[in-house]
Amino acid sequence: MEGAELWRELGQQLRVDAVRASAKAGSGHPTSSMSAADLAAVLLAEHFRYDYDEPKSPANDRLIFSKGHASPLVYGLFRAAGALSEEEFGTYRQLGSRLEGHPTPVLPWVDVATGSLGQGLPIGVGVGIAGKRLDQLPFRVWVICGDSEMAEGSMWEAAEHAAFYELDNLTAIIDVNRLGQRGETMHGWDLSSYSDRFRAFGWHTIEIDGHDVEQIDAAYREAESTTGKPTAVVAKTIKGKGYSKVEDQGGWHGKAVAEDAIEELGGIRNITIDVPKPDARDRHRFDPPGTPEWPSYEVGSKVATRKAYGEALAALGGVDGEVVALDGEVSNSTFAEIFRDAHPERYFEMYIAEQQLVAAAVGMQVLGWKPFASTFAAFMSRAYDFVRMAAISRATIKLCGSHAGVSIGEDGPSQMALEDLAAFRAVHGSTVLYPCDGNQTTKLVQAMADIEGISFLRTTRADTAVLYGPGEEFPVGGSKTVRSSEDDDVTIVAAGITVHEALAAAERLAGEGVSARVIDLYSVKPLDAETLRSIRTPIVTVEDHWAEGGLGEAVLSALSEAEDRPQVRILAVRELPHSGKPAELLAAAGIDAEHIAAAARELAATRAAV
Amino acid sequence: MEGAELWRELGQQLRVDAVRASAKAGSGHPTSSMSAADLAAVLLAEHFRYDYDEPKSPANDRLIFSKGHASPLVYGLFRAAGALSEEEFGTYRQLGSRLEGHPTPVLPWVDVATGSLGQGLPIGVGVGIAGKRLDQLPFRVWVICGDSEMAEGSMWEAAEHAAFYELDNLTAIIDVNRLGQRGETMHGWDLSSYSDRFRAFGWHTIEIDGHDVEQIDAAYREAESTTGKPTAVVAKTIKGKGYSKVEDQGGWHGKAVAEDAIEELGGIRNITIDVPKPDARDRHRFDPPGTPEWPSYEVGSKVATRKAYGEALAALGGVDGEVVALDGEVSNSTFAEIFRDAHPERYFEMYIAEQQLVAAAVGMQVLGWKPFASTFAAFMSRAYDFVRMAAISRATIKLCGSHAGVSIGEDGPSQMALEDLAAFRAVHGSTVLYPCDGNQTTKLVQAMADIEGISFLRTTRADTAVLYGPGEEFPVGGSKTVRSSEDDDVTIVAAGITVHEALAAAERLAGEGVSARVIDLYSVKPLDAETLRSIRTPIVTVEDHWAEGGLGEAVLSALSEAEDRPQVRILAVRELPHSGKPAELLAAAGIDAEHIAAAARELAATRAAV
Repeated sequence: MEGAELWRELGQQLRVDAVRASAKAGSGHPTSSMSAADLAAVLLAEHFRYDYDEPKSPANDRLIFSKGHASPLVYGLFRAAGALSEEEFGTYRQLGSRLEGHPTPVLPWVDVATGSLGQGLPIGVGVGIAGKRLDQLPFRVWVICGDSEMAEGSMWEAAEHAAFYELDNLTAIIDVNRLGQRGETMHGWDLSSYSDRFRAFGWHTIEIDGHDVEQIDAAYREAESTTGKPTAVVAKTIKGKGYSKVEDQGGWHGKAVAEDAIEELGGIRNITIDVPKPDARDRHRFDPPGTPEWPSYEVGSKVATRKAYGEALAALGGVDGEVVALDGEVSNSTFAEIFRDAHPERYFEMYIAEQQLVAAAVGMQVLGWKPFASTFAAFMSRAYDFVRMAAISRATIKLCGSHAGVSIGEDGPSQMALEDLAAFRAVHGSTVLYPCDGNQTTKLVQAMADIEGISFLRTTRADTAVLYGPGEEFPVGGSKTVRSSEDDDVTIVAAGITVHEALAAAERLAGEGVSARVIDLYSVKPLDAETLRSIRTPIVTVEDHWAEGGLGEAVLSALSEAEDRPQVRILAVRELPHSGKPAELLAAAGIDAEHIAAAARELAATRAAV
Repeated sequence: MEGAELWRELGQQLRVDAVRASAKAGSGHPTSSMSAADLAAVLLAEHFRYDYDEPKSPANDRLIFSKGHASPLVYGLFRAAGALSEEEFGTYRQLGSRLEGHPTPVLPWVDVATGSLGQGLPIGVGVGIAGKRLDQLPFRVWVICGDSEMAEGSMWEAAEHAAFYELDNLTAIIDVNRLGQRGETMHGWDLSSYSDRFRAFGWHTIEIDGHDVEQIDAAYREAESTTGKPTAVVAKTIKGKGYSKVEDQGGWHGKAVAEDAIEELGGIRNITIDVPKPDARDRHRFDPPGTPEWPSYEVGSKVATRKAYGEALAALGGVDGEVVALDGEVSNSTFAEIFRDAHPERYFEMYIAEQQLVAAAVGMQVLGWKPFASTFAAFMSRAYDFVRMAAISRATIKLCGSHAGVSIGEDGPSQMALEDLAAFRAVHGSTVLYPCDGNQTTKLVQAMADIEGISFLRTTRADTAVLYGPGEEFPVGGSKTVRSSEDDDVTIVAAGITVHEALAAAERLAGEGVSARVIDLYSVKPLDAETLRSIRTPIVTVEDHWAEGGLGEAVLSALSEAEDRPQVRILAVRELPHSGKPAELLAAAGIDAEHIAAAARELAATRAAV
């Protein structure tokens, strides 16, 4: 069997398998799989180049199911490729199975988790940029998208960037099955509404009948031969195609269908496709000079940690050719521009599109690059769902958010990150770092290069005093006791900008005979629980962040089961800030030296009274 | 002076004022204001209908600066309208001034805070939908957008929804000044790249020279007379227009310019525009039947809290005609569909566009409606920046996130909200509610109708036992002690699904002679600190959420300064969950009855040993 006959039969096999898997599991999305089965069959049988034994091979094509709920189709493809046994195929959605309800990289042939709609295409753009500009390899990126998810703005961020970066290695296949979860989509079967939009964004578009395998094949060929721009194949399909009882019917989204569908579909098939392996090719390497030239700052001088980030990142790029940088059109504020000027070929402007910014980083790390993506920390909140999903993708990306807290000053609350510590702490497996000076920033940026998972660095707008010498080490999970005596009355735990306020407070308290220890908790997650648990005085925590979920609560969580649980006062931002000068705003929020000293004084007195 | 001469002079006045305000403040965005000055001048002088003495009047036109950094222009308009004194105009960006770095509603003529780009247009869509479908008034919505922010996907969510809802009351004015913060935009002065996109999304478009006041006036007239679709006026402008030293120059974003610009611009002017007031009109009222028919559930029966949400919301809509509902294409999962079926005229399908979902709610509350917006709690993370900004807008919106936690089962981690409590707690002034049964849900939904600010209700997918009678009250900020004895050995604090596990654990422990108090902390924020501080036993907290920033840390924060600070063990999700059955997943995460009992047993024993 070959050609159109094979493609048609394989399509039916994929449908049967979707029905079988979901029926056994009692849940899943067979109808959404059935609409895209022919689109997937022709791809696997005729166009895809992939080594299932070497899924990490840089030469492989990449296939991303942006419509991740069509997981029965994803797993059916792996079975058809001979990668997945019939036995394992039968474990769909069971605890302990690699075949989760939505695809995740616990399966080696899945690069990224999908299931939050609108993410596969932006991630595919990252893979595509890497292919053209970093790896410099001829692999293709295929992304199967649902029609419903075209309502997500992130899909249009992807459309914009794919055209801007001229990603002719990228093909988006839009499975227009007309029906969303609860009813018809905005555009139903009006294919032109999709193709008009893609064309306006600079794509080549092809409209086809998504169940006509010859049209599908021709469209893929046309996509492969289109240069200078990405291609969208807009395919009219039928949800539940092949099982007359559910075809094009509402009410069947995310539901298993009766097994009599198998009979109507012509029964179980066991076609195996011998997917051609791509020609072995090595990815391009950027050979950095190799001599590390780490920036260093003189103790007592002043530098903004955001500036130190840019300088450290540029230096890191000088010793590690896998480091790349991306920024959301604020590189002159985050200082990613220093990296851009040093390593222009490894810098990517993502404009004001934070979802695409993070998604591109996720895509690049699929191929082993080490992306550092930066914007204002406040605007990282725009990409929070992408960060959440990146953790499920087991992605290793490095994020830097500048302009943290009220200390930014006059620009006002819209530009102040006050929830980023809480948000990033609540990301699975994340690392959250918050330096207070230039030399510490340098060391933490170096550390980030080797941290697995999502790491987040919070930087400060203002110039702050350099406290540490360039030789000091700052292990992730550690802390620094920057001031202490043998008999401290109170301990102040701070990070970032508030370390400087805490030191000023301690100085003031010393003049009054109150001895305050000051701990710089630069590693907010993981936390130096051991040091925190050794504290025997009352504690004041102080953070330029809301009281919820930040530094203070992190400290409390470290102490919650300790034998000694000192009293902790959390100083944090509690009222909506306004515009003003940084010092005024720190004072207004009650997190400046004066307020820290007052809180510490009070707690120390309570202790003395006991 | 009138007509074009007036418009030109007013444009120059607005430029001079932008220069003056920023120069005095030493910061701000005069050049971004100067590009849009003529666009704003013609609007104010010729097209805008607004009663500055009655900014809440439902008949007023609405003007939203999506490019909120052009705040000197916003305030210059208020001065030109006679609403702002010269004296107050001089307080720009000072602490205590209403003239913040980016506009916020501390000024009565600012409806929503902007400054996180890409939000003004989606909010304007919400205002526009309200105007056509709720208020049913002929006011117009004008949104001034930057060209840079067109890279945000949320702008295209707005474009999609504005066309879908046929918002001919909405005009987007795109200030194409070519220059972003750090350099040229993706499309520079290629106006067609914007108008092609808008047209593909179903808009009427007009390209103009944004400094030719007659072209501007004609375009606005064309927009006003266009029916059935929104209009985008795509205007070519020059950043810094009018001051030759900075015109069309890079490097001037967000920087004050020298005051010699004032001379070149022809000096200070004091034109005042007598903006016509709209005809007084009352907004449409939806008269609900008035007899409340609150759902109630029998103790011991089972109902999912998400279902109870839908039923309560429909009932609420039956007594309060200001209640409206929106959903992100999952209304058959969140059960917003029950409201839709009961009150179709007050229900709005927002498709899979969570940013637009929240933005529309923000827009509707500007006009006094009470929007309830729902989707899976996991996907609320997609709109986190919009929620953050909604708090700065002092918006009152009600959000419901369903499918919380691992207990959803087979769909897997992409669909499980595990960070939502942390994220929503870290929103200024938010209320976070998490019911465990149907009758509690009913009461909390009723309470939400009157909660100011952002309120968030977390619901559960699975059917859970009804614990409380329909007469029970659940004040916001309260808790329920659902099991206790005179001499408890341990206290279990739970919420939502884990209340049921906690009760089962307590039952098991009772059989072993261990007496466990169980507290249902349905109000996660604000917290019942008084009850928590009265606990004299060790505490186990248990939540279907990551350990960071959730219920456990909330409890710790309530105890941190208490005299008695019991040991607290936080049971929470700590490993990435997989697909499986709900009970399997609760067990795998260590948050089911067995794990709770084990933790409680251990803590009770420690206590006994002391």
